Amino acid sequence: MEEMQSIGLFDSGLGGLTGFRALRKLLPGRDLVYFGDTARVPYGSKSREVIRRFALQDTRFLLSQNVSAVLVACGTVSSNALDLLEETFDLPFVGVVSPASEKASEIARAKNGRVLVLGTAATVRSNAYKDALLRIDPTLEVRQAACPLFVPLAENGHTKKGDIAATAIAKEYLEPFSAFRPDAVILGCTHFPLLSDVIADVLPGPVQVSAGEEAARTMAALVGDRAGTGKDTFFTSDDPVAFGEAAELFLGAPVERAFHTDIEAY
Amino acid sequence: MEEMQSIGLFDSGLGGLTGFRALRKLLPGRDLVYFGDTARVPYGSKSREVIRRFALQDTRFLLSQNVSAVLVACGTVSSNALDLLEETFDLPFVGVVSPASEKASEIARAKNGRVLVLGTAATVRSNAYKDALLRIDPTLEVRQAACPLFVPLAENGHTKKGDIAATAIAKEYLEPFSAFRPDAVILGCTHFPLLSDVIADVLPGPVQVSAGEEAARTMAALVGDRAGTGKDTFFTSDDPVAFGEAAELFLGAPVERAFHTDIEAY
Repeated sequence: MEEMQSIGLFDSGLGGLTGFRALRKLLPGRDLVYFGDTARVPYGSKSREVIRRFALQDTRFLLSQNVSAVLVACGTVSSNALDLLEETFDLPFVGVVSPASEKASEIARAKNGRVLVLGTAATVRSNAYKDALLRIDPTLEVRQAACPLFVPLAENGHTKKGDIAATAIAKEYLEPFSAFRPDAVILGCTHFPLLSDVIADVLPGPVQVSAGEEAARTMAALVGDRAGTGKDTFFTSDDPVAFGEAAELFLGAPVERAFHTDIEAY
Repeated sequence: MEEMQSIGLFDSGLGGLTGFRALRKLLPGRDLVYFGDTARVPYGSKSREVIRRFALQDTRFLLSQNVSAVLVACGTVSSNALDLLEETFDLPFVGVVSPASEKASEIARAKNGRVLVLGTAATVRSNAYKDALLRIDPTLEVRQAACPLFVPLAENGHTKKGDIAATAIAKEYLEPFSAFRPDAVILGCTHFPLLSDVIADVLPGPVQVSAGEEAARTMAALVGDRAGTGKDTFFTSDDPVAFGEAAELFLGAPVERAFHTDIEAY
C-alpha cells in the first residue's frame, strides 16, 4: 500500500468521530482525514436513494484528499451504500456492519445465540446487520430496533444515565426486547455509544458492541501503522468553528485543523 | 398580479405544511405549490451560511414552477435568509416572523407586555423575532428559548399531552420562563404547533401564536383568492411516497400529487 497516503473516514455528522477516536489510538503514526456532512445530517431518516447519492459525494471528496482507504464511519451509509461504493471506486472500504456483526456473533455463540441490533430507521429497513449476522451463523436469533431519536438526543447532550427524556425514549425502543434477553447489542449507529449508559440502564445484561470501534480495529489491521506523528484533518460541509467545538466533546481534545468544503460540488 | 399563477411555499421538511393547510383554507381557489427539503432536513441546527444557500436553491426551484409569490413557511429560513431572498428575487415574499410578531405584540400589549419566542437554535441565534417585536413596540419584554429537540420529537410522533419524553424536554426548555409569565408564546418554528398540547401543559396561561398560520393570513390578504378549484402540488428532495404518507398526518387528508426534485441542481 502507498505508505504515505492518508486514511479517510466519513459520517453524516459527528457520530463517526467515535470511530475516528478508536482508529487514532490504533494508528498513532497515520495521517487521518475525516469528513462530517453536518450541512445534511442526519442520514438515518432519509431514503436509500438519497443516502447512496450522498455517500458517493462524500467518497469523491475524500478521494480529492488523496486517501488510500476509507472507513465508512456511519451505520446508515454502511448499511445502504457500501456495495455501491465498492463497485464505483477502486480502493479498499471498511464499513461498520461486518466488523460489528463478527464481534456480536462471537459473543452470542458463546452464550445463547441472541443478538439485538440498534440502528437508525434506514439501517433497520436495510436489514444489513441482520443479513450479515445470519450469513455468519444461520442459527443466531436476531432482532432489530429502530431508534430514530437517539441521534438528536446524543447531539443535544441528553446522554447521561437517569436523563428523563433519554430514558423514556430508550424504554419505548428497548423494553419490547427485555424478554428476548439478548447476549449482545450492536450499537449500529456511530452516535449510539454516547448513549451507552442510558441503554445499559434500560437493558442491563448484554454486551454492547460499538460498530465504530470494531470497524476501526478492522481498518487498523488492514492498513497497519507507520512510523511518525499522525496528522488529524477535519472537513465539514457546515461551519468549521461549530464543528470543531462539537467535535471536542466526542474526541476529548481540541480540534486544531477543521475546514469547510462544499460537498454538493462533488 | 398574474391571476393564473401559483403561490409557492417551502420549508426544510414537513413543518411548513401547517402553513400550507392554513393557506389552503383561506385561498380555496388558488393553485399552491409546496416544496419540502426532506433530503436535507432539519435546517434549524445548521449555520446561517448553509441556511441561506439552501433558501436560494429552494426559491429557485419554486420559480421554475412559475409561482408568483412565496410563503417562506420555515421559521429558520424566515429568521436567517428573508432579506437575502428579497434582495435576490423580484417577487413578493411573506416570511413567518413579521406576521407572528404583529399578532403576539397585539396580544401582549393588551396585557402585561411579555412575549416568549420558541424557535430552533438558528432562529433564536438570529434574534429575528426579538428584533421584530421590539421594532413594533420597544417597551415589550421579550425572552427567547431554543428548543432543538422539538422538531425531531414532532417528526417522530412524540406530540401527545402526557408523552413522557416530550414533557421532560418541554420542561427543560420552558420551566425557566414560568416566572416570566408571558402573555403570548410565539411558536416560531412551523413544526411546533404539533406540540401545542405539550407546551400548554408545561406552560399554561399564555396565548399560543402559530407562525405558520399568521403568515398564511398575511399571504392570503396580499394575493387574494380567485374563482375555481385550487390544485395542490407537492415536491420533495427525498422520496415522494414517504413524503406523501408523512404529509397526510399534517394535512389530515391524502396527498395525491407528490413529486421528487433534485434540489442540489438549483
